[in-house]
Amino acid sequence: MRFLRSALIAVLATAAGVAPAQPADPLPSWNAGPTKDRIVAFVRAVTDRNGKEFVPLEERIAVFDNDGTLWSEQPMYFQLAFALDRVKALAPKHPEWKSKQPFKAAIENDMKTLAASGDKGLLTLVMTTHAGMTPEEFRKIVEDWLATARHPKFKRPYTELVFQPMLELLAYLRANGFKTFIVSGGGVDFMRAWAEKVYGVPPEQVIGSSIKMKYEVRNGVPTLVRLPEINFIDDKEGKPVGILQHIGRRPIAAFGNSDGDFQMLEWTTAGGGSRFGLLVHHDDAEREYAYDRKTTFGHLARGLDEGPKRGWTIVSMKNDWKQIYPR
Amino acid sequence: MRFLRSALIAVLATAAGVAPAQPADPLPSWNAGPTKDRIVAFVRAVTDRNGKEFVPLEERIAVFDNDGTLWSEQPMYFQLAFALDRVKALAPKHPEWKSKQPFKAAIENDMKTLAASGDKGLLTLVMTTHAGMTPEEFRKIVEDWLATARHPKFKRPYTELVFQPMLELLAYLRANGFKTFIVSGGGVDFMRAWAEKVYGVPPEQVIGSSIKMKYEVRNGVPTLVRLPEINFIDDKEGKPVGILQHIGRRPIAAFGNSDGDFQMLEWTTAGGGSRFGLLVHHDDAEREYAYDRKTTFGHLARGLDEGPKRGWTIVSMKNDWKQIYPR
Repeated sequence: MRFLRSALIAVLATAAGVAPAQPADPLPSWNAGPTKDRIVAFVRAVTDRNGKEFVPLEERIAVFDNDGTLWSEQPMYFQLAFALDRVKALAPKHPEWKSKQPFKAAIENDMKTLAASGDKGLLTLVMTTHAGMTPEEFRKIVEDWLATARHPKFKRPYTELVFQPMLELLAYLRANGFKTFIVSGGGVDFMRAWAEKVYGVPPEQVIGSSIKMKYEVRNGVPTLVRLPEINFIDDKEGKPVGILQHIGRRPIAAFGNSDGDFQMLEWTTAGGGSRFGLLVHHDDAEREYAYDRKTTFGHLARGLDEGPKRGWTIVSMKNDWKQIYPR
Repeated sequence: MRFLRSALIAVLATAAGVAPAQPADPLPSWNAGPTKDRIVAFVRAVTDRNGKEFVPLEERIAVFDNDGTLWSEQPMYFQLAFALDRVKALAPKHPEWKSKQPFKAAIENDMKTLAASGDKGLLTLVMTTHAGMTPEEFRKIVEDWLATARHPKFKRPYTELVFQPMLELLAYLRANGFKTFIVSGGGVDFMRAWAEKVYGVPPEQVIGSSIKMKYEVRNGVPTLVRLPEINFIDDKEGKPVGILQHIGRRPIAAFGNSDGDFQMLEWTTAGGGSRFGLLVHHDDAEREYAYDRKTTFGHLARGLDEGPKRGWTIVSMKNDWKQIYPR
């Protein structure tokens, strides 16, 4: 297959009677500088058939965190905004929620009480809003929400708040034979509803947290049902586990933005040969947000402290990115 | 991408100054007849851009069971033969096994006692032999075993006991834009050790039963460890669940051979549009084995009874296959 592709390109070049033209900059939204240089140098090294660091096509696996890495995650994870909106939409059918936490807080936009309910409270909200339906029904609910919901600060649909430089990076890697995967703490089916259209990443290349499902034949119709029970949490130590269970081999490049991505970068960059680890640092209060050590969503401390020593590239959104969102 | 590929082929044809030649039979090991005709008709229908049943590239997902569908499974699942050989290899380090079941039976080739130990006994053997090491170590153990182990009847390496007609079918589907996945009750990492080389199916397209894993940093080296704990059983009702968790969409074609594949075929063929379900019936005692309703491995009864009514294709190995194994 690889050979065939090379052969086709060679024939094409010959047929046209020209040498291949100098390609345009594949990363136009990245400012010139050491960060961009490191990305390009890595890709050139692993794709140079005559180089020492050449990596065969099938091993060119790149993994990307989603929240804060491919799209924004403030003032809260977008999937949490979805869950809260769902609680409000379902509230008329559940009058008992008016006096029952954490639902009461969600309905009343009482973020302080909601935060105090902790992981258990948030999990209750997610389970209530993400389970009890078929995968097709859930997908439709996500699509409908995305069509109308707007981000509180930018007043744009959430799927427009993806990072233009990262879209270019995904495309650049794929053009160089990489298979790109999303590896996120977010819900896998929430992401799969739009990742193909927005990122060009097909559902089978999205890895995330998941709930259990059950197969059954209802009135003669085979279907699956989403259950209110955790199947897998794809965060921190869970990310290398999720990658190995799903992909079955270690990536050669990993991209993240928070300490939830630390182990994924650690494991990826510890492999033999040329490896690439990158953390997006949100330091652009003007065009996006500035946060790291003190935030609830996207906490980043260990990665900032240890990343550079480990050879990871730290992206300054403010300095490295010409543009944040697609226009 | 799809467009680009078509364009390349068109340019090539023009450059060569010829119309594309009539392609050779892509399924030479399949005898002419209704079974082969149905396969070819399905592939033509879903790839005909002007037809009513056209399916876009990204939805051309085909799933294949492994044991009994892509390779043989008698006189026992090959992975079980591997587990028994491992017990024998590890026995010198475990003198207590000489008097402890099910290990004693495994060491003594006492198949009757082993069978009597039931699922629990077999699970104990699998856990003991498949856990406690890193994924890299496990892969090496599998590769070493495959290099030397021989099938008791055919005296060939197990990876040569794959079905030539099915290898052709995999290639034929891929040549028509399908993404081919293995969906097996067998252990996912056992299969991943050789599926890419033997079937052309990369590890990320192998779905199977799995054990849990743990990420840890040992003496500064990040690694994963295989734990003696079931993560997922990819059989019967588990197959549609495993497919949806891993692939995130319903396949349009499913290939199996036992009632463990029933739900996978049922769910696949119940989707809208053109769908294909196929069961391999082992009815060739001379060239392979003949079994269905009364076997321990690869039990097939409901599929034979209901499959034809559901529009599934039943393959007679004896009549439909010109050749069983690669020469």
